[in-house]
Amino acid sequence: VPRRTDFSVYIDAVEQAVADNHARLLFLANPNNPDGGVLSRHDFQRLVDLPILFVMDEAYIQFSDQRTSFLEEVLHHENLIVLRTFSKWAGLAGMRIGYGIFPEAFVPNLMRAKQPYNVSAAAEEAALVTMRNLGKAEINIEKIIEQRAYLFGALQQIPWLSPYPSQANFILCRVERYEAREVKDYLRNQGILIRYFNKPGLDDHIRISIGTSQQIQRLLTALKGYK
Amino acid sequence: VPRRTDFSVYIDAVEQAVADNHARLLFLANPNNPDGGVLSRHDFQRLVDLPILFVMDEAYIQFSDQRTSFLEEVLHHENLIVLRTFSKWAGLAGMRIGYGIFPEAFVPNLMRAKQPYNVSAAAEEAALVTMRNLGKAEINIEKIIEQRAYLFGALQQIPWLSPYPSQANFILCRVERYEAREVKDYLRNQGILIRYFNKPGLDDHIRISIGTSQQIQRLLTALKGYK
Repeated sequence: VPRRTDFSVYIDAVEQAVADNHARLLFLANPNNPDGGVLSRHDFQRLVDLPILFVMDEAYIQFSDQRTSFLEEVLHHENLIVLRTFSKWAGLAGMRIGYGIFPEAFVPNLMRAKQPYNVSAAAEEAALVTMRNLGKAEINIEKIIEQRAYLFGALQQIPWLSPYPSQANFILCRVERYEAREVKDYLRNQGILIRYFNKPGLDDHIRISIGTSQQIQRLLTALKGYK
Repeated sequence: VPRRTDFSVYIDAVEQAVADNHARLLFLANPNNPDGGVLSRHDFQRLVDLPILFVMDEAYIQFSDQRTSFLEEVLHHENLIVLRTFSKWAGLAGMRIGYGIFPEAFVPNLMRAKQPYNVSAAAEEAALVTMRNLGKAEINIEKIIEQRAYLFGALQQIPWLSPYPSQANFILCRVERYEAREVKDYLRNQGILIRYFNKPGLDDHIRISIGTSQQIQRLLTALKGYK
């Protein structure tokens, strides 16, 4: 498989892996982590038609512009599972609560494979309160989408950063000229925490979560003052 | 292995299983579930001297009269692990939080084997608040121990029940003359929930958790009115 220049799914390579290595499971995030890219309907169709179990993690779906979820496709495909979480859009990461949409045939096995304990009583309550106040979460989501557009434009102005268009609640940037790790350390020294991935293919990148407009201003000021 | 008449650990049988079947792990609750019996220091010594990993679940230890934990023995045995939980004595069962005391050699492997997510933020906070208010939990524990003694005496008065002496926050009873399952259903119809185990060797027993003195009175009245 040739090295790609972006983080989109290389469908040809997936098809080849299924054919050559009898791969049986495809686990994909949509929007994708770490770049925030989304899967096209055409690419989805090619993947779901493969003779594999296709698990799609929609942790960031609420931040995608068209909110184009593949959730309803579970009704039409026996090999598709869609996972959702309250961690991102509802701000409940610390509560550890999410859910999955499974073809009916999986359900009896799920109960056998699940961990012995259910979600905590507090997580259950937090999720219920969120569901009863969806309007509030919706306002936060809209703010994040707005701030993401603003931040993307501002990051493009910084000559040594190349931001990737994102449909998630973060923006990945390729760092040119400087060391990504040093940029992360520089920001941390100013009390600004961003994500640096010490992994091949990602170690020249940083990932910035969308904060409040005040936080974004602090970040941009810091970035402009770098070197 | 011959059938036992109580639920104490049959040390000879454990030793034999280690010798014959190369058993490698012993998982034991102390006080024991479902009967609330405790392990003697002499029996502990025989078990910990076996060439196996010995995991002791001390979920109920705070309710044992002498609070005779084997926790400090972890310092002296490379094959002993003691587990604790906030579920019982602190009333945090719904929060899913506990801890373990491990010989140092286990720690690096633990981090590799653990589930990807840590305990929830809410569970962490609940445990911290409990630790800052130990006196309050202590009062509850003392009440439960007192009520257990009272309930044990009262259950002994009921001719068709044989309660087992318990060092936990419940009392197991053998049900004579009647069907244990029917006793459970009878109580449930009166809004009283007790534990019935539909398992060989236990299906003629019921387990009663220690409640408030009011709850215990309601239970005893209901039991006296049975058939």
